Amino acid sequence: MFVDEDNITELAAERWATAHSPRMAELMSALVRHLHAFAREVRLTEDEWTAAIQWLTAAGQTCDDKRQELILTSDVLGLSMLVVQLNNRFTAEATPATVLGPFHIDGSPTVPRGFDMSDGIPGTPLFVTGKVTDTEGRPVADAVLDVWQADADGAYEAQLPEVDEARLRARYRTAADGSYCIRTIAPRGYAIPMDGPVGDLIRATDISYFRPAHIHFLIDEPGYRKLITHLFRAGSDYLDSDVVFGTKDALIVPFTARPAGGAPDGSRLDAPYLHAEYDFVLQSG
Amino acid sequence: MFVDEDNITELAAERWATAHSPRMAELMSALVRHLHAFAREVRLTEDEWTAAIQWLTAAGQTCDDKRQELILTSDVLGLSMLVVQLNNRFTAEATPATVLGPFHIDGSPTVPRGFDMSDGIPGTPLFVTGKVTDTEGRPVADAVLDVWQADADGAYEAQLPEVDEARLRARYRTAADGSYCIRTIAPRGYAIPMDGPVGDLIRATDISYFRPAHIHFLIDEPGYRKLITHLFRAGSDYLDSDVVFGTKDALIVPFTARPAGGAPDGSRLDAPYLHAEYDFVLQSG
Ligand SMILES: [Fe+2]
Ligand SMILES: [Fe+2]
Repeated sequence: MFVDEDNITELAAERWATAHSPRMAELMSALVRHLHAFAREVRLTEDEWTAAIQWLTAAGQTCDDKRQELILTSDVLGLSMLVVQLNNRFTAEATPATVLGPFHIDGSPTVPRGFDMSDGIPGTPLFVTGKVTDTEGRPVADAVLDVWQADADGAYEAQLPEVDEARLRARYRTAADGSYCIRTIAPRGYAIPMDGPVGDLIRATDISYFRPAHIHFLIDEPGYRKLITHLFRAGSDYLDSDVVFGTKDALIVPFTARPAGGAPDGSRLDAPYLHAEYDFVLQSG
Repeated sequence: MFVDEDNITELAAERWATAHSPRMAELMSALVRHLHAFAREVRLTEDEWTAAIQWLTAAGQTCDDKRQELILTSDVLGLSMLVVQLNNRFTAEATPATVLGPFHIDGSPTVPRGFDMSDGIPGTPLFVTGKVTDTEGRPVADAVLDVWQADADGAYEAQLPEVDEARLRARYRTAADGSYCIRTIAPRGYAIPMDGPVGDLIRATDISYFRPAHIHFLIDEPGYRKLITHLFRAGSDYLDSDVVFGTKDALIVPFTARPAGGAPDGSRLDAPYLHAEYDFVLQSG
């Protein structure tokens, strides 16, 4: 049977349904149907199709070991955050998940309670303290909080050329009572990379290309659902317009100004600092 | 307003609808809705999303000046042929369009009637003759047929490393009566490139990765709709399973065996040859 405008979608979907894995058959034939439905709905022109191919090629070629333009594409289309939510349907008591983002680095050093992961990098000192518990409020002892953030220029270690040791990233453990204490500097909101294909698209719209100030957390403990999330600074710019759709009400935390003096880790600071308090609640499973 | 699984699609679609060009607003918000509908329908897992990003990155990075893996992707998903059909709704009398493919080279030499564009390349001699007319049967004089094809190994010039002069491609003109005469060698069916990300996908299915034997034509005359099409050899393998969905009944032509002797261009051949006759009918517009 030969192809025409009416039958091509079913022909293509049936062909890809021959995938040997049933799940791949399902995914590929659904992908065909949805891509075709898009092209039909907008009656995609040949010039637009060509532009789309060129754009996607440029996006693929912008990727390297420091940059992932296609994750960024998925982020700004809201697809990443949709996938996060489809796969992390936690109960209302649990800390909600948000996007991983492209800047996580595996194998951050495990550091002691109160360790200053901003060591020498300029910024306002910030303590983040609280507990890790289950949804019944029971402490999770010895849980690892894998933490990473951007510097005051909005740059993550993963974006910098040659960094000798871990920079604004570390793994903290909770104590027997589930408590943790992180020392760092206050993160700032930052622009996503705008010098590539995603930037070209966004500049053709009124979309704000900033993210509100946040710190990333990953907590992956046996017996609990893996939690990938952020804490956002209350009152920061762009909370309502996060370019990657990652902000959630339950993740916004005040960074309270404290005078110089006793710090949450028991040390003394000779300058004012900020203090954020947050209890991470893990969904069992 | 913060994001949740229910509202994210509308939030993202509305955001991209701020594109300054109304058409871009339409395209991007429709793209968001269809991509999200796909992810929701299959309940895309985070591992599948990661695999898709990695696959697309690899496809983009496989592209270079000789190879376009993302056009190939669009081809094997039936998307290219759908777009061709959405944009080339000719009347039943007109020659139907099919995919351009990635191997067209601009600026082929204009050659005289009967010129052998296979010059020195081994294969069975083939003449293609006929007329170019409008849908009323009136000849289109001085029309240019831009012709290209693969060699007997299935390789197009565009795929080869350093070719000095045009190889299996040329531009022929019609005479005052609309007639043309092309001399070449019989094309063979060929496999699409299977050593990249598209090949990886196809090997995970029962999809045939061959195209039936064909020659490409592009005719772009003032006063007529541009015609991009193929002629397929009747009886060749893969007519029913063209991996890019390009075959159409009206484009299948017998390649008739002729004995040595007088050839359609008035010359004499000392070996048997093949002869295909086809009248291209252009849609006015
Ligand atoms: Fe971030
Ligand atoms: Fe071809």
